[in-house]
Amino acid sequence: MRMIDIIEKKRDNKELTKEEIKFFVNGYTKGEIPDYQMSALLMAIYFNGMTNDETVNLTMSMAHSGDILDLSRINGCKVDKHSTGGVGDKTTLIVAPIAACCGVKIAKMSGRALGFSGGTIDKLESFDGINLRPDVEDFIKQVNDIGIAVIAQTGDLAPADKKIYALRDITGTVANKSLIASSIMSKKIAAGCDKIVLDVKVGSGAFMRTIDEARELAKIMSDIGKGVGREVVCLLTNMDEPLGINVGNILEVKEAMEVLKGIGPSDITEVSIQLAANIVSIGLSIPYDEAIDKVEKTIEDGSAYEKLREMVSREGGETKYFDDLNLFNEAKYKVNILAPKSGYIKSVATNEIGRASMILGAGRETKEDEIDFTAGCQIFKKTSQQVNEGDVLCCIHTNNEEKIKVATDIILNAYDICDELIDKPVLIYDIVR
Amino acid sequence: MRMIDIIEKKRDNKELTKEEIKFFVNGYTKGEIPDYQMSALLMAIYFNGMTNDETVNLTMSMAHSGDILDLSRINGCKVDKHSTGGVGDKTTLIVAPIAACCGVKIAKMSGRALGFSGGTIDKLESFDGINLRPDVEDFIKQVNDIGIAVIAQTGDLAPADKKIYALRDITGTVANKSLIASSIMSKKIAAGCDKIVLDVKVGSGAFMRTIDEARELAKIMSDIGKGVGREVVCLLTNMDEPLGINVGNILEVKEAMEVLKGIGPSDITEVSIQLAANIVSIGLSIPYDEAIDKVEKTIEDGSAYEKLREMVSREGGETKYFDDLNLFNEAKYKVNILAPKSGYIKSVATNEIGRASMILGAGRETKEDEIDFTAGCQIFKKTSQQVNEGDVLCCIHTNNEEKIKVATDIILNAYDICDELIDKPVLIYDIVR
Repeated sequence: MRMIDIIEKKRDNKELTKEEIKFFVNGYTKGEIPDYQMSALLMAIYFNGMTNDETVNLTMSMAHSGDILDLSRINGCKVDKHSTGGVGDKTTLIVAPIAACCGVKIAKMSGRALGFSGGTIDKLESFDGINLRPDVEDFIKQVNDIGIAVIAQTGDLAPADKKIYALRDITGTVANKSLIASSIMSKKIAAGCDKIVLDVKVGSGAFMRTIDEARELAKIMSDIGKGVGREVVCLLTNMDEPLGINVGNILEVKEAMEVLKGIGPSDITEVSIQLAANIVSIGLSIPYDEAIDKVEKTIEDGSAYEKLREMVSREGGETKYFDDLNLFNEAKYKVNILAPKSGYIKSVATNEIGRASMILGAGRETKEDEIDFTAGCQIFKKTSQQVNEGDVLCCIHTNNEEKIKVATDIILNAYDICDELIDKPVLIYDIVR
Repeated sequence: MRMIDIIEKKRDNKELTKEEIKFFVNGYTKGEIPDYQMSALLMAIYFNGMTNDETVNLTMSMAHSGDILDLSRINGCKVDKHSTGGVGDKTTLIVAPIAACCGVKIAKMSGRALGFSGGTIDKLESFDGINLRPDVEDFIKQVNDIGIAVIAQTGDLAPADKKIYALRDITGTVANKSLIASSIMSKKIAAGCDKIVLDVKVGSGAFMRTIDEARELAKIMSDIGKGVGREVVCLLTNMDEPLGINVGNILEVKEAMEVLKGIGPSDITEVSIQLAANIVSIGLSIPYDEAIDKVEKTIEDGSAYEKLREMVSREGGETKYFDDLNLFNEAKYKVNILAPKSGYIKSVATNEIGRASMILGAGRETKEDEIDFTAGCQIFKKTSQQVNEGDVLCCIHTNNEEKIKVATDIILNAYDICDELIDKPVLIYDIVR
């Protein structure tokens, strides 16, 4: 088999066989196929797309390019959850303990932040002392013992995806739905869970800008799931503005804890409950309404809040914060940004809020950057809300005084205030199975 | 400027500016832009094509990536001639001396053979002692003195094209007309002539399989010429079977000399006369009919034959062959291949004849291979001719006895003999200006 023939076949819009896909995935991972041939193939895929079979075969070849976690020693149904990435998205910290309380096994590996998107692992490190790199034995034991473990990615999961993604990023071949879907699904399949709930973000702050695009991506991922015998449910959720009020690591952890106490903002609470209910429904194979009741009960009776405390404690993190949220460190500078005029909030440019938070210290521009856990911002006024001139739109948190001016300017520009009444945004557009 | 933005722009089918094209051509030539980004861009170009302006800008950026020959010290109009490559195509050896006799200045750099296509430089090296690497001063002086010089490529002409072509060859991005046209034209422009006559081959033995494809390629090259102020004339000629009878270096030189004597095969004679007449017509700015008369006269009066002898002599080559064609070396083995049945020749698979000749020793599979100047084959029976079982179809020439069997099989397979009368193939399909 020769790579040039595979490139030309795809270029000429013919379907690649399972063997051909395996050949280029393994050859590229081993370094036997050069970058320049892989990028030519990726561009041909960008233009001609992939069939269902090709996408499944690509996913499985990438999943099998490294370790496949064996979670069979965990009793019960393991459900994974993944979000395509957004700003202020702290749902894992809320959804995972709720689902665990309901009896679903949560054995989840999460990522770090890069660019505008936050990462669950960075957020969890807001609890000093936490160890998110246990060995696999401890990870499995923890899930069997307390029903939940959220840790950093361990082992060598889907190295082909990692290498191919890095190449796509610098060759203009990211934005293809089959490639996006197989990238996400290969990692989820290698991570070993039985079923998967995906939160596909839609809107100005997400990779998928329209509902149709997101629905198509969700359909591909659901089809991959069907192709490999893993049930997949995709929620299409709004990312036209940040989710919740708080953006930044400690700020988001606090907000997640407030949601678990039943006192969080309504948008993040609603999205979290629906994600959790879907996890519980497929995890326990019970009707959705029944799952909703179970989920809501774990908030009302405080058990989900206690489950998060139990997990943090088991992973070695400081838990005093669970007794008093005010014990978390705070940034030295907290600066309110005021509405320059009265009106209704027409939109909040999500990417710009993410960018401002990153500049304030909450995120990483490059992998090597250090995070300031206290940095970030609080988006008090959101789409459709009425404001009067001088109202606090947002509060920025930082330890770096020099960044206040630039972040303030970005955030003021991110707000669009108009005179007309604006409809409240829809939170969940659709569910694709 | 960033390469990733240029890739994405072309991928999204937007027109690249002159500056963007210059950026990637120069960056890639200098090694500042990696192969994997260049191949992604080339594949995007493959799919979206290039506008006229883009093609002209790519051509000129590649032409200016190295030396541009300054032929201004040659008096008179310099016309270059280029063929897109075929089997048995020895027209340069015929056309160049004819045009020079008519008063057009021929200052031509030619290439070597690779794969199935022959190269004029290898053919000229059939004359022992010939030096095809003079310095530029001698090259210019020779053209001023005797009106003609055909030498090997000197200097660093269009290095960007060389590097980009090598990458296209291994990434499935050769077959795009804008890329083919700019590759050819960048070299021709760097080679410094005033006007250019192109022989675009069409058919089973050519890169352009259909007349429409060839016409489109010709139109692009002619448009590039217009864009940069160089008159270009393209002849679309038949390459459904080898041109003339002889394939192989010494064999082709002998046939070219026979054509100049007026005793060559009719197809190669006709194509050569028309190519030469076009060169003379644009070179002297005279009507085509007048040019034809001049061209035919140089054959009739033997002056073109003497002009070739003069050039070979001036370049240091042995000229005794001009007195007796039988003095050329011959291969040790000459084996006739006989018609297995009676009928009419329906087709002769050109690529297969080229492949057989290469195997017999006439060509190179890799750049390092040594050529056997005496090897090749003579295609005595061609399309539309009637044959009787046992007639000689072809004679193969080689010094390598082991290759006789495989070459014979290839050639027998290349011939398609049928029962129906077959029309004589058209030699020249069209002329595009």
